[in-house]
Amino acid sequence: MTIRAGVFGATGYTGLELIALLAAHPDVALRFAASESRAGRSLRDVHAGAPDVPLIRPHDAPVGDIDVAFLCLPHAASATTAAWLLDRGPRVIDLSADFRLRDPAAYRQWYGADHPAPGLLGTAVYGLTEVARPLLPGARLVANPGCYATSILLPLHPLAGVGATRGTVIADSKSGVSGAGRVPKLHTHFVEVAENFAPYSIGRTHRHIAEIDQALAAWSAAPPLVVFSPHLLPVTRGILTTLYVPLAPDWDHARVHARLAQAFAGEPFVRVLPAGEAATLAHVLRTNRCVVGVHPAGRDGLAIVTSALDNLVKGAAGQALQNMNAMFGLPETRGLTA
Amino acid sequence: MTIRAGVFGATGYTGLELIALLAAHPDVALRFAASESRAGRSLRDVHAGAPDVPLIRPHDAPVGDIDVAFLCLPHAASATTAAWLLDRGPRVIDLSADFRLRDPAAYRQWYGADHPAPGLLGTAVYGLTEVARPLLPGARLVANPGCYATSILLPLHPLAGVGATRGTVIADSKSGVSGAGRVPKLHTHFVEVAENFAPYSIGRTHRHIAEIDQALAAWSAAPPLVVFSPHLLPVTRGILTTLYVPLAPDWDHARVHARLAQAFAGEPFVRVLPAGEAATLAHVLRTNRCVVGVHPAGRDGLAIVTSALDNLVKGAAGQALQNMNAMFGLPETRGLTA
Amino acid sequence: MTIRAGVFGATGYTGLELIALLAAHPDVALRFAASESRAGRSLRDVHAGAPDVPLIRPHDAPVGDIDVAFLCLPHAASATTAAWLLDRGPRVIDLSADFRLRDPAAYRQWYGADHPAPGLLGTAVYGLTEVARPLLPGARLVANPGCYATSILLPLHPLAGVGATRGTVIADSKSGVSGAGRVPKLHTHFVEVAENFAPYSIGRTHRHIAEIDQALAAWSAAPPLVVFSPHLLPVTRGILTTLYVPLAPDWDHARVHARLAQAFAGEPFVRVLPAGEAATLAHVLRTNRCVVGVHPAGRDGLAIVTSALDNLVKGAAGQALQNMNAMFGLPETRGLTA
Amino acid sequence: MTIRAGVFGATGYTGLELIALLAAHPDVALRFAASESRAGRSLRDVHAGAPDVPLIRPHDAPVGDIDVAFLCLPHAASATTAAWLLDRGPRVIDLSADFRLRDPAAYRQWYGADHPAPGLLGTAVYGLTEVARPLLPGARLVANPGCYATSILLPLHPLAGVGATRGTVIADSKSGVSGAGRVPKLHTHFVEVAENFAPYSIGRTHRHIAEIDQALAAWSAAPPLVVFSPHLLPVTRGILTTLYVPLAPDWDHARVHARLAQAFAGEPFVRVLPAGEAATLAHVLRTNRCVVGVHPAGRDGLAIVTSALDNLVKGAAGQALQNMNAMFGLPETRGLTA
Repeated sequence: MTIRAGVFGATGYTGLELIALLAAHPDVALRFAASESRAGRSLRDVHAGAPDVPLIRPHDAPVGDIDVAFLCLPHAASATTAAWLLDRGPRVIDLSADFRLRDPAAYRQWYGADHPAPGLLGTAVYGLTEVARPLLPGARLVANPGCYATSILLPLHPLAGVGATRGTVIADSKSGVSGAGRVPKLHTHFVEVAENFAPYSIGRTHRHIAEIDQALAAWSAAPPLVVFSPHLLPVTRGILTTLYVPLAPDWDHARVHARLAQAFAGEPFVRVLPAGEAATLAHVLRTNRCVVGVHPAGRDGLAIVTSALDNLVKGAAGQALQNMNAMFGLPETRGLTA
Repeated sequence: MTIRAGVFGATGYTGLELIALLAAHPDVALRFAASESRAGRSLRDVHAGAPDVPLIRPHDAPVGDIDVAFLCLPHAASATTAAWLLDRGPRVIDLSADFRLRDPAAYRQWYGADHPAPGLLGTAVYGLTEVARPLLPGARLVANPGCYATSILLPLHPLAGVGATRGTVIADSKSGVSGAGRVPKLHTHFVEVAENFAPYSIGRTHRHIAEIDQALAAWSAAPPLVVFSPHLLPVTRGILTTLYVPLAPDWDHARVHARLAQAFAGEPFVRVLPAGEAATLAHVLRTNRCVVGVHPAGRDGLAIVTSALDNLVKGAAGQALQNMNAMFGLPETRGLTA
Repeated sequence: MTIRAGVFGATGYTGLELIALLAAHPDVALRFAASESRAGRSLRDVHAGAPDVPLIRPHDAPVGDIDVAFLCLPHAASATTAAWLLDRGPRVIDLSADFRLRDPAAYRQWYGADHPAPGLLGTAVYGLTEVARPLLPGARLVANPGCYATSILLPLHPLAGVGATRGTVIADSKSGVSGAGRVPKLHTHFVEVAENFAPYSIGRTHRHIAEIDQALAAWSAAPPLVVFSPHLLPVTRGILTTLYVPLAPDWDHARVHARLAQAFAGEPFVRVLPAGEAATLAHVLRTNRCVVGVHPAGRDGLAIVTSALDNLVKGAAGQALQNMNAMFGLPETRGLTA
Repeated sequence: MTIRAGVFGATGYTGLELIALLAAHPDVALRFAASESRAGRSLRDVHAGAPDVPLIRPHDAPVGDIDVAFLCLPHAASATTAAWLLDRGPRVIDLSADFRLRDPAAYRQWYGADHPAPGLLGTAVYGLTEVARPLLPGARLVANPGCYATSILLPLHPLAGVGATRGTVIADSKSGVSGAGRVPKLHTHFVEVAENFAPYSIGRTHRHIAEIDQALAAWSAAPPLVVFSPHLLPVTRGILTTLYVPLAPDWDHARVHARLAQAFAGEPFVRVLPAGEAATLAHVLRTNRCVVGVHPAGRDGLAIVTSALDNLVKGAAGQALQNMNAMFGLPETRGLTA
């Protein structure tokens, strides 16, 4: 089987990563890569190391010729494009935030505008692959999760579902700069980032809080509240989240470790480290892995969990491909590094 | 007044920083810089950017000629040298951990050996300058605090003393590589650190826990317990600690901000940022500042505090000089960048 | 004596560096810092680590109250401001390229527009301090040299003047990112620069060629031709130039070394390394030094010279201050790190 | 066909890279990975991101079971191991310098000791694949070229052979830190490398000069002399060489460009950029490419050539695999990124 794919928004960091992965996937034929701003050029003109893929205008895209479209567009633009595409045939994997929240009111609260296609919200599958797996073969529209959210939700899923944690989970996250996008800003200028390290959107103010809350509420009758502090790391890619997880009675870090090890035992892309080993960016860069460590906190009733992934792979393009594999009945590992 | 100073352990990163500061201090005459391993060379042979200071053998040091000795030695070696020096006249500022703990049993527990000079432990002043100030003019032996401990204890001091916090404070700290010392190790190899980010000694296992516990117990009848997770940042210097501070009833983040702003109002080296602004490494590099931000956590009963300093300055050599200034009756800001 | 100074263009990297140096200079009173875009704010709002200096509108600047104005403005804007200032009293040190070339036709060729104040070109002193020293006390307008040009011209001056080199000198230069300015561009985005290294403006196409040619022609009847290749280094600051210097008969690398050592023997800011030692960025960062190494090339008739400086200090703000010291009769080292 | 392969010296940076490539190669079965120091562990214990490959003692290696052995050993150890292996069956690809020089006297001069297996020197093929191609199918012992040498020799080969260059070629090279190996040294300590940039082994003193001289002498009756200055870049990987190439009469940069474009037209791994575009590390990281740019120097008789490759791929493990492919009759691109 060959899956015919198209990409919208090819020139950002997520688009570049996705096209490199698609180009190397044995069962995918990349039919087109579209870019509003750079149509007529090669992707290689945009990024020296990229494959030589021609960029076309989005409205010239042969959308009737593809089985699946990947959207690496800004929010709002993504929803509009998705609606247009779904009327024309292909299935859609949206890497923006547009279809992650099921409630249009929540979308308005966090994104400051009415949702462009609220009627589609109920049809989208939130594509945290390890959780969404049963729904993916039938999905026409998949909302790829946020990078921070993936690093936080994956290790919490097996714990929230059994009531191992409640109360306030603290997620202290650190991300590489590619997560901030490719449009030059002062806060991504090399001189401002190198030798610096900076928190931002501390507390419960970052937009990924919305999808984290929604997922935990779906998984647990008494979901924990996540307090989330992102920080900007002077590296190009990678997220490490340090989670401080309050435990229910009868739980300790060893039981947390056993629970996570058992829950992810068969998962090709989630690796639970031996007790006491910490997840690091070196475990995950340029792979689709999420690596998880469990640690005693030095007092009862609290465990520390470290969680690492590559924001451009498991946090974006890789998980999108994993979702595509599941949607089309391929092994999830196809075309991905486990 | 000219203070005659000598340095032992001149060639590590702390020694280099200290000598650069001493060389620029208007009231200090640097009498000698001693190094066991590099005696006979210039400090400039060890570090290209350093002043041209001759390195002598420690046992050749004219210790009767100085008013104060700075020890930048490994622990245990430091205590032995301090005891030898105190018998010969100079006052001693020890940048190692040897005199930070008052209890020899705690020293044995954390450092795995008997203390080489237990009789001196009771005489040492724990030199967190802003707190220790009244004791410094009379001190003969000052234990310079740890870099992580300084970033954690400074913002907690005004809170712990009034009972604003109790329970478990989480300190998620991130440090540059100079904190790991200059002896080459695999984990400080450029290729292992660049593009990486890694937790280590998570929970309550890092040695700085001991001095943090001791200080908080001295300041509060119901001290909080600090859970502390250090991480290695791919930068040369700087520490940022993100503190998650549970609050007593009647406290919220605004009151925490007001309390810290009032407590540090007159302090030249502690800057409390306007509400909502986060401390970053850019605020503090190559200065003796500790910069503090206070943030709402998004739920009642919890505040987030960000605290930044330069591990080689306020976290080591700069605070040592600040202590020297206070010991000898000089303005604390002399020779330091506020 | 107190020199009353004002700065125009305070918020770029050069302006920030200059204001930090001026604020620490014992004989300078900084009267104002002007910024078109950020007037009404503090310099600290622009850069977290900067001094708390209010920014005023350029046209509100009390220019009658100052002895010297520093211009850290874009070219063309600088010349216009200089002309306006010189009519009103203060002496001017221009850190832009506007007054480096004496010939208006050369200016038009390299900068693509007519010079805004051609009548002033003949009055400006090209402020490579070690060479320009005799002219500085009487100068009303000083053109501070370019950062690359300084790294190339300083070691060539003693050689060109005695005919030690002729033919084609190759200058392979590498610069940190602050040299590209603070306005965010894709080529200064952290993700594009980190882990990358890139040549640009190779051959004789970079604008600094013009001032290099002009200086060498003034120093030698048979000046060498400089082929110049700049490269962008993934560091925040510093320039290292590797010079390949063809030698006249009777010259070898040892004689080159002796000539440079003798020429710079009394210079506080130029350090000629012992034979065989290479200049590195570590020698010069955050100092006003230019450090020079001389090396055999492994064949007769060629020497290799390495030259390092900090582009923001000796390559810009530091040399400007050194020039100010010389203009006002102060020791050149005042307020600077040698 | 499946090629059965073994690796000696699996835990250095070259070994890690090679094993990752072998593990992903569709026609290779990795039979073993040997390490003297880490036998009994997994490669993943040595490097967090590596495949989970068991490490065995070299003397336990089933050398009769493999078709090809890769040696990533220090020099001298490599020659001894190669001799032992060649007696036992497998073909050998040596990534050390031991078989690059054909003359035992040259080996002694550059490596300071007698060659351990001089009788094999005449049998080794110098594996600059694009040049050695015809000899590889019959080779039993291949000497993989040095990383710097590859970046210099590849673009010079088509020029030297037709007499386009003679005299002194200047090769100003810049390399990432992985080229210095994984054993921790002060000069590879993160704090010494970050924000620094340093020349070393300037002139004609670096060992790669020997293989460069030997190759050019084989290709040309009047070979150019290469003056070579390596520099250490603060990046983990990648080499960029800027070549200053004196031209024979009738040659200019446009003809150089045409010659290189024509010579490499069919090569999957050598990309000659359009005129005026410069090679950068971003073109080549994590690929087996060598990317080449040609530039006017701004004066007659000289061209500038920029050449970039990844020192661990085309400069080591990738070229080794390319050689293996050619030795065993596979397409050279198999298992490699072009």
